Amino acid sequence: MKTQVAIGIDVGGTNTVFGFVDREGNCIYESSIPTQADQNADQLFERLFTTINNDYKKFINSYELAGIGIGAPNANYYKGTVELPPNLNWGVVNVLDLVKKYSPLPSAITNDANAAAIGEMIFGAAKGMNDFIVITLGTGLGSGIVVNGELVYGADGFAGEIGHTIVDPDGRDCGCGRKGCLETYASASGIRRTVYELICNKNTPSSLREIEFNRLTSKDIADAALKGDKLALEAFDYTARILGLKLADAIAHFSPEAIILFGGLALAGDLIFLPTKKYMEEYLLNIFKNKVKLIPSALPGAHAAVLGASALIWNEIDKKHS
Amino acid sequence: MKTQVAIGIDVGGTNTVFGFVDREGNCIYESSIPTQADQNADQLFERLFTTINNDYKKFINSYELAGIGIGAPNANYYKGTVELPPNLNWGVVNVLDLVKKYSPLPSAITNDANAAAIGEMIFGAAKGMNDFIVITLGTGLGSGIVVNGELVYGADGFAGEIGHTIVDPDGRDCGCGRKGCLETYASASGIRRTVYELICNKNTPSSLREIEFNRLTSKDIADAALKGDKLALEAFDYTARILGLKLADAIAHFSPEAIILFGGLALAGDLIFLPTKKYMEEYLLNIFKNKVKLIPSALPGAHAAVLGASALIWNEIDKKHS
Repeated sequence: MKTQVAIGIDVGGTNTVFGFVDREGNCIYESSIPTQADQNADQLFERLFTTINNDYKKFINSYELAGIGIGAPNANYYKGTVELPPNLNWGVVNVLDLVKKYSPLPSAITNDANAAAIGEMIFGAAKGMNDFIVITLGTGLGSGIVVNGELVYGADGFAGEIGHTIVDPDGRDCGCGRKGCLETYASASGIRRTVYELICNKNTPSSLREIEFNRLTSKDIADAALKGDKLALEAFDYTARILGLKLADAIAHFSPEAIILFGGLALAGDLIFLPTKKYMEEYLLNIFKNKVKLIPSALPGAHAAVLGASALIWNEIDKKHS
Repeated sequence: MKTQVAIGIDVGGTNTVFGFVDREGNCIYESSIPTQADQNADQLFERLFTTINNDYKKFINSYELAGIGIGAPNANYYKGTVELPPNLNWGVVNVLDLVKKYSPLPSAITNDANAAAIGEMIFGAAKGMNDFIVITLGTGLGSGIVVNGELVYGADGFAGEIGHTIVDPDGRDCGCGRKGCLETYASASGIRRTVYELICNKNTPSSLREIEFNRLTSKDIADAALKGDKLALEAFDYTARILGLKLADAIAHFSPEAIILFGGLALAGDLIFLPTKKYMEEYLLNIFKNKVKLIPSALPGAHAAVLGASALIWNEIDKKHS
């Protein structure tokens, strides 16, 4: 009998990655094509399925395809759409309808942070958990929230925007057009802004004063902090305090078993986890103190996006059979 | 055939109210006994069931009892416990175990705000909704949150504490031991504190300057505002701005279809609804603007607590039969 695999697809601004993932989370094969963000969605999926169908020939004797899971920016699980993604020239497009042109397999779509959350639930750090939150600390701050074993989509499919809760209504400009959103502080780009704020306000010497804003990365800041750079350490502390405060709010809403941090800034490890945990506990209501784990993702970094996307459709298939 | 009714019980600091409620939300009978908050829980339930069994005799020929739903402070739905309620000398007690001593009927317990949320879902303003939030604006701010048609209890049963999300970590002392929780601003007692803050900071003339702090009620403030008292109106605006900001955060998390306001301060009507809606929309992420209804409770005020408690057990009975 052939082993079943799901196709996981992660649509990014530059590349679209896909892979074949079995029920146990083994990624049998992974590859990618350029997204060509200036083109429409149809051309991407036409090229993508040509590539997938061709690559699948190598596996056709051992593996059969069970479904297609897609992670994409601004994706709506309920409608199957992607709506005005900031980095793709797609407008509003029904991706699941497009996919049906190229494959008869069952398919589902959600945004990348929700896909990461299902990935952690099926294959990763949230196995066996019914209530948890995944936070992706990349250029922005994405989040996928699971309650009673199900993703929180809300009435319109767009729930789970912890990155756009407000820290300070008069704070930093956010890409969303408002001010002071959490992601302007707690993200790879947020900590870079914090470093520059500290450079302005403090006389603390720092190697980071040598790096221009547009080239400064969260890895530079982490590397400096590991060498004991006081300004870099202060930037992590500042970031962690704000993140800890807003995670305490999220815990008051959801009382999750764990919060899982994922993405570029989470790779800073103890530099971000230890102070965030400290401030989170400090800001928590008594009944929630020392209950909520703050843990790193357990999805293998190289295949995380494809595993998350494939987990989405495995989860749908499981729901149908339960 | 006899009509089925559920027993709804609402445990308060002063009185414990109970009633018989049919499947359509008609309250056939309601009565109450003193809680005697300085005594333990067992004595309350012994007296309560003596009264209930006696009162039920009048209805025994027409109605049969289907179950018992209980709303109580600091109640844990999963464990059946009430844990360290601030106004009752109970410590930690398993109420559902106690109830079994006096009745073989199926029973369930939750806190009063969660009971209100299920009440709105089964009998009130949230009929047919799968995703909504109920906020009770009383002495404190309680909340019950429904996602995918189910109450959010979280990993430990204590989720849904919107009143203890933090507005300002250096803000007003909260009864929970921290500072700046939402309920220190947006509640009947919060708006009273705001009036006194405005009295300190402003020279605005106001009839409220004649009322001492311990006697000032949210109804006094609403009455003054209705007469055009500028300071009272400013207090409503300040309260609404903070409530609107934190409701916008809750919407970013949950994307509910509606937020339902309930309790003493909500009785101020347009005085609180209109500015809260205005600020909420102002602080919302674009994708959520003009989507989320802000509406009053549709449970009849006189029986709301008993209807909510009875809805809890009707909901459990429905789940078993579905």
